Amino acid sequence: MHRYSVTLEYVGDNFHGWQKQPDKVTVQEVVEKSIKNISNTKTEVCVAGRTDAGVHAIGQVIHFDLEKYLKPEKLVMALNYHLKKETLGKEISFKSAVEVDKVFHARFSAINRSYRYRILNRFSPSALYRNRYWWITKELNLSIMKEGALSLLGTHDFTSFRSQGCQAKSPIKTINSIEIKKKGDFILLDISARSFLYNQVRIITGTLKELGEGKIKNSNFLEIICKKDRRSAGVTAPPQGLTLMSVDY
Amino acid sequence: MHRYSVTLEYVGDNFHGWQKQPDKVTVQEVVEKSIKNISNTKTEVCVAGRTDAGVHAIGQVIHFDLEKYLKPEKLVMALNYHLKKETLGKEISFKSAVEVDKVFHARFSAINRSYRYRILNRFSPSALYRNRYWWITKELNLSIMKEGALSLLGTHDFTSFRSQGCQAKSPIKTINSIEIKKKGDFILLDISARSFLYNQVRIITGTLKELGEGKIKNSNFLEIICKKDRRSAGVTAPPQGLTLMSVDY
Repeated sequence: MHRYSVTLEYVGDNFHGWQKQPDKVTVQEVVEKSIKNISNTKTEVCVAGRTDAGVHAIGQVIHFDLEKYLKPEKLVMALNYHLKKETLGKEISFKSAVEVDKVFHARFSAINRSYRYRILNRFSPSALYRNRYWWITKELNLSIMKEGALSLLGTHDFTSFRSQGCQAKSPIKTINSIEIKKKGDFILLDISARSFLYNQVRIITGTLKELGEGKIKNSNFLEIICKKDRRSAGVTAPPQGLTLMSVDY
Repeated sequence: MHRYSVTLEYVGDNFHGWQKQPDKVTVQEVVEKSIKNISNTKTEVCVAGRTDAGVHAIGQVIHFDLEKYLKPEKLVMALNYHLKKETLGKEISFKSAVEVDKVFHARFSAINRSYRYRILNRFSPSALYRNRYWWITKELNLSIMKEGALSLLGTHDFTSFRSQGCQAKSPIKTINSIEIKKKGDFILLDISARSFLYNQVRIITGTLKELGEGKIKNSNFLEIICKKDRRSAGVTAPPQGLTLMSVDY
């Protein structure tokens, strides 16, 4: 058996998220169908980050095992070829592959995951970035948002920043980096951690947005963290602004 | 009468270009329908750059006259509101408006137009940028492309770089700036001039691509320019990689 790690990108708009579900088109389902054309057998894939419906990925990583050996570049080309035949196949692209050791696991071997959240902060919407941003018309205070973001850096109990249904055993996570910058009319939030709680990035974004518009007054989020109560943080930002950028091993 | 200059963006994929045509959906048609909801009368718009089918715009500019006065911001909001009712309305967004003097003309008052052409140079396609790039799998030599681009700077007879059907009286144009840079797997060509010949940017891109892959040997394009023959330049790059970025007045 040969284990491959494959990087892929996809547009989240029309998928019901990553994970397989009955009667719904998901990224996993389409990806596994594409692989089945090569393996000739049902092949389950493991994914680095299970993204929600509407969330995009530019550097998602999966691993799976194949009986036969294929040169990584040939594997990517074959996967993309078979993808074209699938419903929504054009919304996915396999980018690169590498043969890895049997101990490699796309989910458990990952040491860092980077996400970007994109807010459009102007009074008119964008056509070219449709379904790729959260549209906020009220002008947000960028410098206070930067302060708020920095107060989240490091290891904390993020109970206030996780949604119901989160399966993580511990609410303690470590934010390795968090940066907010402006690019044209967009506000970009780049955040990375070994792993995140369910909806953690979207709740952080929603909280920063409420800080930026003045609804939340205190830019030191330690108060929200200490409450360990989801209701103390801001709204959950919508999925379409979120993109999984990369996973490091 | 009040004259307005309005900036808009659109995704070119599903339009048959800017200009009105019978039985085909064009950007102009959808834009004019949206304006008619406000003016209550047929209103013709003038555009800075008539884009071809598949070409995108992030900073297109139009002007038109309205009987009644509307605050520019209200006008933009009303236009976007009416846009939603139109077929392909979501593919367009009005960004900003300003009331201008009667002598202002979106096309003839423009002093500079900036376009970006996007090449994806890797062996796998992109899902997130689908219909926004020209996919070249063979590795292109960036530094020789930069040399070629620089040889086009300034005022030249661009007969070799215009398509049949070009209505410009003179083939002499001035390239104000031209820059090639790499961003991830993308090669971006940024080019600006007061005005361009028909397909000029796309033929320049096609010629630079052939230089980058070694099909054209000489990075000094003066030879191609001097021949004044379309056949001496490279192919016309496909429309989907091209975006009108901005127009200056």
